[in-house]
Amino acid sequence: MVHVEDRGYQFGDAVYEVCEVRQGRLIDDRRHLARLQRSLGELQIRLPMSEAALGTVLREVVARNRIGYGIVYLQVSRGVARRDHAFPSPEVPPSVVVTARPLSARRNEALAAAGIAVIIVPDNRWGRVDIKTTGLLPNVLARQAAIAQGARDAWFVDKDGMVTEAASSNAWIVTEAGRLVTRPADHAILKGITRTVLFDAVKAQGLAVEERAFTLVEAYAAREAFVTAASQIVLPVVRIDGHVIGDGKPGPLAIALRRAFHQFAQWS
Amino acid sequence: MVHVEDRGYQFGDAVYEVCEVRQGRLIDDRRHLARLQRSLGELQIRLPMSEAALGTVLREVVARNRIGYGIVYLQVSRGVARRDHAFPSPEVPPSVVVTARPLSARRNEALAAAGIAVIIVPDNRWGRVDIKTTGLLPNVLARQAAIAQGARDAWFVDKDGMVTEAASSNAWIVTEAGRLVTRPADHAILKGITRTVLFDAVKAQGLAVEERAFTLVEAYAAREAFVTAASQIVLPVVRIDGHVIGDGKPGPLAIALRRAFHQFAQWS
Repeated sequence: MVHVEDRGYQFGDAVYEVCEVRQGRLIDDRRHLARLQRSLGELQIRLPMSEAALGTVLREVVARNRIGYGIVYLQVSRGVARRDHAFPSPEVPPSVVVTARPLSARRNEALAAAGIAVIIVPDNRWGRVDIKTTGLLPNVLARQAAIAQGARDAWFVDKDGMVTEAASSNAWIVTEAGRLVTRPADHAILKGITRTVLFDAVKAQGLAVEERAFTLVEAYAAREAFVTAASQIVLPVVRIDGHVIGDGKPGPLAIALRRAFHQFAQWS
Repeated sequence: MVHVEDRGYQFGDAVYEVCEVRQGRLIDDRRHLARLQRSLGELQIRLPMSEAALGTVLREVVARNRIGYGIVYLQVSRGVARRDHAFPSPEVPPSVVVTARPLSARRNEALAAAGIAVIIVPDNRWGRVDIKTTGLLPNVLARQAAIAQGARDAWFVDKDGMVTEAASSNAWIVTEAGRLVTRPADHAILKGITRTVLFDAVKAQGLAVEERAFTLVEAYAAREAFVTAASQIVLPVVRIDGHVIGDGKPGPLAIALRRAFHQFAQWS
């Protein structure tokens, strides 16, 4: 339980991370903790324990919950204080919440084997979604709209017709011309850890990533499309806003990258 | 306390209201509850009790905390469910939190008598700030930036140089030509209850409100400026981003409207 005056609850004044657990081990936890530190730094929230101690907490929560395959969730808020927008006294300790839960590997593999449908929603989020805050209401509404339309996820499109990212993952396409494209990690997307690691996996395939914004029109005409996130790794997209992508089946590059990914991740 | 998996905590999937308490009575509670219902409707969250029952809860919390002058805070989140962006089952009951606390009338009057300084910050919030959600991080950062610069509050300015609103109140000016101006209640501002009631107070003074967007340049040159919010009613602004407004003292119209306000509010 957390206090009703926790600033995470009353202001969304909090950041989080989600880390994959595989064979009981944390995947890329150091990269996740580095990104956490960056988010905290942007908001001037201090981590109330050392990164090493927090790493121990993560592993302990995973072990005590006997998670073989699953995720560990970590949230840090600015702490509990009488409600006032401005920051509380620096002596107020930030709140740390860590939870873990198993995922079904079979279910995730089935999802990846079938590929998912995504819808398109206008990107009306705030200007700093590069900070991994708990202010996720637009993402919640986008995901719910997808479910309501029989799809699995939603891709945000900005006012210039460019795809930014998915509701909780990064968006990628293989263009008609065969180029692998994903948006640069500016302030309009979250710089995914899985996205970063995938750059290495792509390189190992002898390929390059074209890091640039791409249009919705390009996405409709893409050979392949997929999303990347810690809980899903590489998840093929086979339909965007009703448009069938490629032959309507997961693309070969998406499948290859999904298989190769864990060779490039850091296992703790 | 609330559960760590309350969606208000993990997603900012919650709305709130703040209602003034004066002489132990709720000010404009019916209008606040009507706005709450609108916010809930926009997010498809149901109120888990009747509006009448919630009104009773508000009065009971005020009475048990023996609040003469102060505020009552009300938050409704989509409830507690295993973390997943999409809405949980409709059977999950939304969470309701109500707190109350006294304010210092003397302190608030002193603040109004002196007037406040505000800074300017770029409005980088999401596209639906007309819904009163707890996703207040941009407002938190704006208010903190104001405090850090020795000011009290911040005015958001959009990319066209138009003032939208303040970090937790609506912004008004009396232009050089003597027109009382405030921005229309579109999706770029929250439609303040105090703002709405003030329209009646203005009318009673034989004046009209020019409801239109105004520029930062107009604000710098204004005769008067003020903000409106339930906890502050009418609070004169005497300095914007270092520019002295009028003669640097609270303007006569702001003072008159502050005095007249409670004749036009609904007392419960």
